[in-house]
Amino acid sequence: MSGYEVTKRNRVRLLPDRGRYDRDVVHAIIDEALLCHVGFVDDGQPVVIPTLHARKDDLLYLHGSRGNAMLKHLQAGHPVCVTITHLDGIVFARSAFHHSVNYRSVVLFGHGRLIEDAAEKMTALALLTEHVARGRWDDTRVPNEKELKLTSVVEFRIESASAKVRTGPPKDDEDDYALRHWAGVLPFRRQSLPPVPDPKLPDDISVPEYVSGYKRPGEK
Amino acid sequence: MSGYEVTKRNRVRLLPDRGRYDRDVVHAIIDEALLCHVGFVDDGQPVVIPTLHARKDDLLYLHGSRGNAMLKHLQAGHPVCVTITHLDGIVFARSAFHHSVNYRSVVLFGHGRLIEDAAEKMTALALLTEHVARGRWDDTRVPNEKELKLTSVVEFRIESASAKVRTGPPKDDEDDYALRHWAGVLPFRRQSLPPVPDPKLPDDISVPEYVSGYKRPGEK
Repeated sequence: MSGYEVTKRNRVRLLPDRGRYDRDVVHAIIDEALLCHVGFVDDGQPVVIPTLHARKDDLLYLHGSRGNAMLKHLQAGHPVCVTITHLDGIVFARSAFHHSVNYRSVVLFGHGRLIEDAAEKMTALALLTEHVARGRWDDTRVPNEKELKLTSVVEFRIESASAKVRTGPPKDDEDDYALRHWAGVLPFRRQSLPPVPDPKLPDDISVPEYVSGYKRPGEK
Repeated sequence: MSGYEVTKRNRVRLLPDRGRYDRDVVHAIIDEALLCHVGFVDDGQPVVIPTLHARKDDLLYLHGSRGNAMLKHLQAGHPVCVTITHLDGIVFARSAFHHSVNYRSVVLFGHGRLIEDAAEKMTALALLTEHVARGRWDDTRVPNEKELKLTSVVEFRIESASAKVRTGPPKDDEDDYALRHWAGVLPFRRQSLPPVPDPKLPDDISVPEYVSGYKRPGEK
């Protein structure tokens, strides 16, 4: 897969060796995340809102209530930034200065378009549901006409993107390796706890495999 | 503790029953998170960048390399938005429409100020290090004069804030409770994996308790 063009807008300026522009790296970070943070400008004021996303090629789908201010900004065609971050661990160095975190993040720039066609909207909602849990769309009551009308779905085209990735142990100054402070990485991962059935669920409906064995794409 | 004033800027408009303005609720969500997402406007383009934060009262401290574009925008006094999100679980409803997530998020509005005084900067860096792992500041080599000069620290004053919280089981339409789809919550939490010592660490330096027993404030 080709990479995103490196321009003034997406170039990782500080620590450029952490920058990645390959589509497969960017897309894998997007797909593993359940949520993204969407930034837009409201009358000069930046606003950042967390929301669910789903991706197909270079398109992200975002949805919400018809009155959602973020979606209104997107559908008006204003520039938008979507950022996703996985925190993979804390990096403890011997010096405070070289402390860091291991992470994978993407910053995506682009514009939105309101999806008005009902069939296209339904396809996007299926993609969003499948992004949350693969297999769920066929195991749920799909939206009816009234619900479709209450929901806005926006397509966001990734026009420019970069990823930033840090992995591995701390890097200390040569003189500091003699210090007696512990150094290393404390890794994190997201853990699924046992599913909690709805109190109103009949006892004879068992937990589906896509819930009991829940994993994000790319997750080990 | 008093609450943040509810104004046009921070009022939770959709699903207002999820809105919280109490300082203790907002502060607990901030303190539990390792990272925040900072939104600013660069020549009309919104940009959202993940970074570490630490809080004291209504002040957040953010730091980075002296050349950091986000910090430059903050220290120039432009309006900034800081958003923090904890994803606590997926809410599976019988209808696709009522699927949701359990989460706790805050959206903070304010302005930044560059910390120029060296002692004040050192205090803020101690706060940032202690935010990452309580007890680490006294178990590390603190920044020297050169490192202080290479680091920018910005104080961000929370002028307006709101939290949004969803907890509990799914809520379906009355007619849908007869459907045979599994419904309930799949809870998530962050899990610490076994610490990975730096390959260069001498064998006789053991893992400190603030790493082996790592917990975020408020975490069970």
